[in-house]
Parts: sequence; C-alpha cells; structure tokens
Amino acid sequence: MPRWEAGAQTRLTQAAYELYIERGFEHVTVAEIAERAGLTKRTFFRYFDDKREVLFSGAPAFQDAVVDAVANAAGNVAPIDAVVAALVAAGSGITEIGEGARARQRLIESSSDLKEREMIKMVALRDAIAVALRSRGVPGSEASLTAQAGVAVFQTAFERWAHTDGSVGFPSLIYKALDDLRAAINPVDHPAPPDPPGTS
Amino acid sequence: MPRWEAGAQTRLTQAAYELYIERGFEHVTVAEIAERAGLTKRTFFRYFDDKREVLFSGAPAFQDAVVDAVANAAGNVAPIDAVVAALVAAGSGITEIGEGARARQRLIESSSDLKEREMIKMVALRDAIAVALRSRGVPGSEASLTAQAGVAVFQTAFERWAHTDGSVGFPSLIYKALDDLRAAINPVDHPAPPDPPGTS
Repeated sequence: MPRWEAGAQTRLTQAAYELYIERGFEHVTVAEIAERAGLTKRTFFRYFDDKREVLFSGAPAFQDAVVDAVANAAGNVAPIDAVVAALVAAGSGITEIGEGARARQRLIESSSDLKEREMIKMVALRDAIAVALRSRGVPGSEASLTAQAGVAVFQTAFERWAHTDGSVGFPSLIYKALDDLRAAINPVDHPAPPDPPGTS
Repeated sequence: MPRWEAGAQTRLTQAAYELYIERGFEHVTVAEIAERAGLTKRTFFRYFDDKREVLFSGAPAFQDAVVDAVANAAGNVAPIDAVVAALVAAGSGITEIGEGARARQRLIESSSDLKEREMIKMVALRDAIAVALRSRGVPGSEASLTAQAGVAVFQTAFERWAHTDGSVGFPSLIYKALDDLRAAINPVDHPAPPDPPGTS
C-alpha cells in the first residue's frame, strides 16, 4: 500500500460519518466521501463494497467475539446464559465507544436501506450463534430459538442504550431486556386480589 | 386483460413451481417460466417483480390475516396469546395446502437468495405484528419483543411441520414451539436430586 494511503480506512470512515450526519445518508456519494478523505473512489472500493458497508465494518469482529464467547463458555452454563454473557461482553465493547455508537445507530434508523442491511447482519449473527450453540451440543431447534431470543434481547437493549444518556450500563440493559422478554412470553399469573383494607 | 390471459397468475405460478422443482431454482429463467405457461415475459412481470416473488405471492394476505387477528383479539387477551392465536389461525391456512406448502419450503431452503427473501418477509411480519400490538396499547418494546418471539415460534413450528409427515397438527406445533422458547430462555430450575433408592 502506498504511504499516502496509510490510515485510509479510518479516514474514509470518518469522512463518511461526517457527510452522512451533515447531509443525510441518502444524499452522499462515494465520490464525495473519497474527496473529503483526500482519496480516490478506487481506494474506497478497496475497503468497502458500498457506502452502506462503512457503517458495518465492525460487524465481523463483533460476531466473532460473540461466537467465541459462546463457544468458550463453561460446559455447565445454560445456553441462554452463555449467549447473554457473550452479548454483554461483546456489546460492552461497542457501547464503550459512546457517542460514536449512538451516532451510528441514529444513522441506521434514518434509512430503510441501512435498516435492511442491519437486519441482514442481525440474522447472520443469529445463525452464527445457533451454530456455536449446536457445537456445544445444544439440539437444533433449541439452539435456534435461544439464538433468536438472544438477538431480540440484544437489539432491544441496544436501542434503549442508544436512546438514553448511557447512565444505565449496557449489561443492566441486556439483563432487563431478557427479563422483559420472559415477562412478555410467559403465561400471565393472575395473583389473588389484595385483602380488602381493614381485614388484617 | 385479454381473454387468453385468464388465470395467467395461476398458470405462471404452477409453471414456475414445476420448473424450480425439476431443475433447481437457480437454473430457471423468467423466459422459461413464461414459455411453460404459454405466456410472455411481459405478462410475467405484470404479476411478479422477479422469479423469487412467485414463491411469496401469498405473503401479503398471510401478513394481513395475522395483523387482523391480533388487532381484533379480545381486549383482555395477553399480547403473546393474541399473537400465537393469530399465527395458529393464519398458519393453519397455509399448512392445509399440505404438499404444496412443503414443496415451497424445500425450495426456499435450497437457495440462499430465497432464504434471504423469506427472512425479509419475516422481518416485515414481525414489524407489522409489533404495530398491531401497539395499536392495542402494548408498550413499544414489549410489543417488539412479543412480535419477535411470535415470529421465532412460527418459524420453528413451520420448519418442524415441513419436515414431518403432518400427523401433528400445526396448532400443536405452535404451542410446542412456544413452550420450547419459554424453556430455552427461562432460568434453569435445579430440582433437588431424587431420593436415593431404598430411602422411601
């Protein structure tokens, strides 16, 4: 790589974020990103397949981190606990970025194109988690259901994180989302009505 | 519509299924489908955006049926129960088709292109269910988690149905998948070990 391209990926990423935030994702071209970064379109396409992928360059590392953590969880850990612990660990790495990760989330929510790409990444993550669970001996459809639950919990926690001030840590948001999912799907208990006042 | 095109959509659909099953989805062109149906490519594109969409022409009606059933469930029904009942009702309509629905499922599983399209339809279904739940007054993230759980349950039940002989009815498979999801995500009970033999 020629010396003048050192840091090209970082420069392109920063230029793309700046332009997407300034003008809106839909109104930015690859040529403009390359120009802002002082590079060529050709260099852009050496790093990214298209202008959406700039926002997803971290997805493979994130997925690998989740899969590794699931695969390496202690043998006696329940599948859902292995998945949740993996999402806490890998997700905390994202949320530590703070404002950058929030800006990314707002951009994704601003574009149906980006939302579709995010959804495809989440399905890939779900499938990779299911494979990792099966390699731990979890039967097929339990692995698949657990992976789907894990991804639903992650998405819920991440959206809540992105739309709050970050005063609640990401691990708490993950466990809260898991509790909420359990509450949403478990049979409703109809507790006995409280004793009327004055009877105790 | 000229008289000779009467039933064109049905003829095109049947021709497409025949060819996909004979040759594999990837190896069939729109021109071949039209020819087998005795129609033109132009007619094909009046009914379908591309050769994948032939397999998803029922998706809007299915989604509408689910959404209507969720929206019209009695007011005191828990959100997850409204969703599950809606999926049982709408899904039974599909599984009553029997072998045709199984053939469709096998085709989808044979092609990554079709699997991606199916996934996009399932995400659309999930989002539509979440909107229907919100219109019933279910708070945002509970609606979203319930909808995700419902779609995971539906996919699990449908895959099991497609890979068995149909002797277990679709409603039972839905309720079984819901039980499995609950078991997968609920905290593990560690029951007391059984009494050793001879102590009772």
